[in-house]
Amino acid sequence: MSTIIKITRSRGRPAKDQAEYAEIYDRLVNDGVALLTEKGFASTKIDEVVKKSGVPKGSFYAYFDSKEAFGLKLIDHYAQYFVLKLDKCYGNTHRTPLERISDFMQEAREGMARFDFRRGCLVGNLGQEMAVLPGAYRQRLIDVFSEWQAKTEACLRSAQEAGEIDREIDCANKAEAFWIGWEGAILRAKLSRSAGPIDRYSKDFLDGLKPRSSI
Amino acid sequence: MSTIIKITRSRGRPAKDQAEYAEIYDRLVNDGVALLTEKGFASTKIDEVVKKSGVPKGSFYAYFDSKEAFGLKLIDHYAQYFVLKLDKCYGNTHRTPLERISDFMQEAREGMARFDFRRGCLVGNLGQEMAVLPGAYRQRLIDVFSEWQAKTEACLRSAQEAGEIDREIDCANKAEAFWIGWEGAILRAKLSRSAGPIDRYSKDFLDGLKPRSSI
Repeated sequence: MSTIIKITRSRGRPAKDQAEYAEIYDRLVNDGVALLTEKGFASTKIDEVVKKSGVPKGSFYAYFDSKEAFGLKLIDHYAQYFVLKLDKCYGNTHRTPLERISDFMQEAREGMARFDFRRGCLVGNLGQEMAVLPGAYRQRLIDVFSEWQAKTEACLRSAQEAGEIDREIDCANKAEAFWIGWEGAILRAKLSRSAGPIDRYSKDFLDGLKPRSSI
Repeated sequence: MSTIIKITRSRGRPAKDQAEYAEIYDRLVNDGVALLTEKGFASTKIDEVVKKSGVPKGSFYAYFDSKEAFGLKLIDHYAQYFVLKLDKCYGNTHRTPLERISDFMQEAREGMARFDFRRGCLVGNLGQEMAVLPGAYRQRLIDVFSEWQAKTEACLRSAQEAGEIDREIDCANKAEAFWIGWEGAILRAKLSRSAGPIDRYSKDFLDGLKPRSSI
């Protein structure tokens, strides 16, 4: 359906229409992420998305076949955005590997503060709602966590090689534990609408990495 | 409204009616907790609760003024049930303080396994949904976490006095960090529908308590 509309439109003023199509698409995705990170999937109605985006409801279905397809697109979009954020932090060679991990937590904290701790993590929100989500989301969400964990594991490994963290730490397990707990920190920051839980969790995590011999 | 109905009923067959009233009340609360721990607040409709409980919808409002009042009752009920669970584990003098903490995690894990990892923690679920919940829930949920944390802190302190955990650990901070991360573990267990995340988090938490000098 979306293909037909695209073709029809492109017969008219192709360049402008294509740009407009892309612009509306991006707006729907960005507004969808904003709403879902705040309210979750079940509580976000398509009516609300199109209202926020200033798009007629009928047009929504020219872009997405269903709310399910829309949600899956939002997961992909959010996962990609987050991977860029992780790569930026973990790939910053001006900082030591351990500082990079700390930088990521700090950056995520600032990201939440910008929205007054109302918006959480899309992937965490959806994980919590799994019982009422389309079944296809489960594996996709698990895969997203795996990807983030692999990146954190690699950074922890670099920190270990640099002697910044205890040499006995199993970096794969630690990265998994980090992401498990991190989603709890985001949840609690939303609940208390403050950075407190993120700060507490971050400090506890970093303390737990310290080389035992240095103490 | 509920008072009037209670009085009216008690004029008839008081003992039986009162027992019936209490029985239906308990059923609504238990079924409400079951639905909310699985699906969250927003996705659970009163229609579904009364259907599960086998109660006419009109009767629901003889017990609770609104969905908001019902939800608040469920939080109280769940918090109370959980405090009993914590007291049972943490107060078990046949086990060392550290074993008691481990026992709690094991018992919670088994509780989730019984429902095939479909049901999470009511308080965590609601925390995640805070953006769409009645404002009054926020402080109540924060207070529930504070109560659980205080109990865990006391048990950690006993473990510290017994020399089971590192003497440098700040038990208040550690108990807070535990509950922050624990909700993440429950969330991830629901997502993966497996005990894996709980086991990973539990092991990581217990490893982080070990006396440093013993290593």
